[in-house]
Amino acid sequence: MKLKEMARRLDCELQGDGETEISGAAGIEEATESEITFLSNPKYAPRLKDTRAGAVIVAPGTQTARPALFSKNPYYTFAKAIELFYEPPKPIPGIHPTAAIAETAVVGEDHSIGANVVIGEGARLGKGATLYTGTVIYPHACIGDDFLAHSHAVVREYCRIGDRVILQNGAVVGADGFGFAPRQDGSLYKIVQSGIAVLEDDVELGAYACVDRATVGETRIARGTKIDNLVQVGHGSRVGEDALLAAQVGLAGSSRVGNRVMLAGQVGVAGHLTLGDRVIATAQTGIARSVEAGSRISGTPEMESALWRKNYILMQKFPEMVRTLRKLERRVEELERLLEEKKGS
Amino acid sequence: MKLKEMARRLDCELQGDGETEISGAAGIEEATESEITFLSNPKYAPRLKDTRAGAVIVAPGTQTARPALFSKNPYYTFAKAIELFYEPPKPIPGIHPTAAIAETAVVGEDHSIGANVVIGEGARLGKGATLYTGTVIYPHACIGDDFLAHSHAVVREYCRIGDRVILQNGAVVGADGFGFAPRQDGSLYKIVQSGIAVLEDDVELGAYACVDRATVGETRIARGTKIDNLVQVGHGSRVGEDALLAAQVGLAGSSRVGNRVMLAGQVGVAGHLTLGDRVIATAQTGIARSVEAGSRISGTPEMESALWRKNYILMQKFPEMVRTLRKLERRVEELERLLEEKKGS
Amino acid sequence: MKLKEMARRLDCELQGDGETEISGAAGIEEATESEITFLSNPKYAPRLKDTRAGAVIVAPGTQTARPALFSKNPYYTFAKAIELFYEPPKPIPGIHPTAAIAETAVVGEDHSIGANVVIGEGARLGKGATLYTGTVIYPHACIGDDFLAHSHAVVREYCRIGDRVILQNGAVVGADGFGFAPRQDGSLYKIVQSGIAVLEDDVELGAYACVDRATVGETRIARGTKIDNLVQVGHGSRVGEDALLAAQVGLAGSSRVGNRVMLAGQVGVAGHLTLGDRVIATAQTGIARSVEAGSRISGTPEMESALWRKNYILMQKFPEMVRTLRKLERRVEELERLLEEKKGS
Repeated sequence: MKLKEMARRLDCELQGDGETEISGAAGIEEATESEITFLSNPKYAPRLKDTRAGAVIVAPGTQTARPALFSKNPYYTFAKAIELFYEPPKPIPGIHPTAAIAETAVVGEDHSIGANVVIGEGARLGKGATLYTGTVIYPHACIGDDFLAHSHAVVREYCRIGDRVILQNGAVVGADGFGFAPRQDGSLYKIVQSGIAVLEDDVELGAYACVDRATVGETRIARGTKIDNLVQVGHGSRVGEDALLAAQVGLAGSSRVGNRVMLAGQVGVAGHLTLGDRVIATAQTGIARSVEAGSRISGTPEMESALWRKNYILMQKFPEMVRTLRKLERRVEELERLLEEKKGS
Repeated sequence: MKLKEMARRLDCELQGDGETEISGAAGIEEATESEITFLSNPKYAPRLKDTRAGAVIVAPGTQTARPALFSKNPYYTFAKAIELFYEPPKPIPGIHPTAAIAETAVVGEDHSIGANVVIGEGARLGKGATLYTGTVIYPHACIGDDFLAHSHAVVREYCRIGDRVILQNGAVVGADGFGFAPRQDGSLYKIVQSGIAVLEDDVELGAYACVDRATVGETRIARGTKIDNLVQVGHGSRVGEDALLAAQVGLAGSSRVGNRVMLAGQVGVAGHLTLGDRVIATAQTGIARSVEAGSRISGTPEMESALWRKNYILMQKFPEMVRTLRKLERRVEELERLLEEKKGS
Repeated sequence: MKLKEMARRLDCELQGDGETEISGAAGIEEATESEITFLSNPKYAPRLKDTRAGAVIVAPGTQTARPALFSKNPYYTFAKAIELFYEPPKPIPGIHPTAAIAETAVVGEDHSIGANVVIGEGARLGKGATLYTGTVIYPHACIGDDFLAHSHAVVREYCRIGDRVILQNGAVVGADGFGFAPRQDGSLYKIVQSGIAVLEDDVELGAYACVDRATVGETRIARGTKIDNLVQVGHGSRVGEDALLAAQVGLAGSSRVGNRVMLAGQVGVAGHLTLGDRVIATAQTGIARSVEAGSRISGTPEMESALWRKNYILMQKFPEMVRTLRKLERRVEELERLLEEKKGS
């Protein structure tokens, strides 16, 4: 595709040779002369000189000698550019003969129901549903329009899902929460998990992400939140809008997570805590107390990221500090001894 | 249901208006006037004043003006109360036409075998089995009575499972352990995992929990232990009775975990270690040495929780300490210089 | 089997009674008189005295009174010994009637295609494929010879897999990477994941391990690398040859991991980092910067393991150090006061 055609489709101002032929999109380090790349973070501006890319998507005002498309949001425009060159395989319309749909289930129009899909009694799906091989919808689940479920995804009984929700392979909505009441003899009695899990519109769950059903009431993931692979959301939790939970994050039961919170990989949140809006936690942070909106935290237990980094640097000198402290002790002893002598003299 | 009827069914002493209509159970903060809640931890007693709940389940002697049910074990009674208002959808009796059961497999009475369930050669299941869609029982697995497996749960070849075991979605019993012998050239030779995994009676595994088969011998989860979602139990491990392993816990190979141990979320246990009975580890603890019975541990590597908390508080002052230490050094230098002068004078 | 027969088959020098009957292999602590065990790590040599094993596999020159087989690589020979006594159930040849193979898919000879397996349009598999129940091969995936996939394993569209690759239950190759571009209003736009995931020859993935497809280009696991259960490999990452990633490890996007790297359980690697060859990270290490080849690291953020251990020991004395520091401050104050007095006097 010619760069001038891309500029037109992506609604960007063009700089340089519009006849440049672009055949794909790539990262700034991997791009070849026939590919387009992008620069979003000014921190990486020096890489703009070294890239072999045939064209770049940059913010207005960025200095570059290359053919360029200017966009206020280069990352977003790059995402759109990828779509010009790639389309995932189209799901096969209709219902595969091996699918088993209960008589009382309702499935909207324009669907693609793959092999071995099972939809239980009383379940409802809106229009435009794509269910890949082996997706399982338990009885009485209720799902909105344009649902996309990859193979082995599961929606458990009574759970509710909004429009345009995506489940990657094996994501489970509404497995039983982890609730047991100890009996007098120490054995554990299973507490029936009578609540549900709710995903609002535009939520995405990664492969094998688990959003447990609540003991009573509901677990809820609010509009637009994206959850990565192998994440655990404990029963009764509530995650706000447009939040990002990276891979292997774990929220214990009854967590309250605000809007636009970003939890990096392997972060853990202890039970019954509240994270305010826009909290950012770096990878592996172990959150043991509630956190105010806008905080940036790190460490286990969590502290301000700035303090954590400072402590880390100091820790490198910890052995030296201990030696200094011991030496100081001896020097002070010596001083005390000398002064005592003087006094005596 | 009237509160007096609940008192009768739950075998509790009643306080207040037995005619109070209760329509459900809820947490102390969410409960409405038509719901019952409970108070178990005296720490939360102040919440008893603020709850809107129509009735409360509390320990005998608890002061409250509300309609109440008295129970020595309020949490357990609450679990029973939930059951008065909720019953999960009944599994459909019989065998779904798409299920594939090997001729040499044996399945006890009163079963519900869902769509696409596969049971291999020589496998045996007791009575009362409920196998949801897509459960896979490999050849020669042996399973007790009242087994409940949610969709995509897997029991691998030769593994053994007791009575009343529950597998949440996709839990895998007996996948290959992670064992490789390096050859002289550094490449890795797969060690056949010839052992099995065993779950004793009343064990529950969460969604995508993995209990690997042993290289030789067995991996064993003892009676009554409950394991949460996405937990890894390495090959050859043994977990005692009535233990609780929260989400994303990982046990390396050949771990020995005692009875009633409680590992909070994301705890890791290194290989070949022994945790005594009733050890409690807080979230994300990284256990690198064997731990005595009854210990309460935190941190990576683990230490007594009390020390860990103290250190954490001190860490907050670490930058200040470093400054103090540097200042002290200078002050001592100055003192030494002064004394040297005096000596000289 | 007689020990002399084992010696012959394993190509080992024999010591002691070749008529000793061996019926199985076991760990050094569990082995009985009819079993063979091994000693690889000289650290555990004292256990050689206590084992009840009927015979042992040891390095040449090891002193033992027991019947023994000598091997330069006892662990590897032990792996071979296990195979003399155990063979996993043979997969059933042919294609199960419930499998659904697209007309345009190509499957090589000598295959075992289990129940409910689905192979999509244009997919290609080499000879000797074993696909257990419910394995799903998406359209246009391309897989080499002797592929072994356990139930519910998934290979997504266009992904490429070499020869002799093993997927444990539910391993997913090529689920969507976690990529979203924030719009001006803060909502998140899904970036189509147009790249693929590639597993080279002899790779093994554990149960529910996830190797995400790249946004553009590819995610690649090089020859011989073994990945344990519940591991996350983020989009665009590259892992070298013969590496070992233990359970619950997480690599963020665009990680570069060298050959023969060993990451213990629950290690996390932040995005866009490079780990040189043979890096070893102990359990739960949180890697926040690129790491040089051959390093041995621990802690979050990572540091040299030796320093980490030293710091840990010092941390135990941290409360005492703080007390010492405070006392020193007072003693120095007192000294300063005394000197001031003297000066004054």
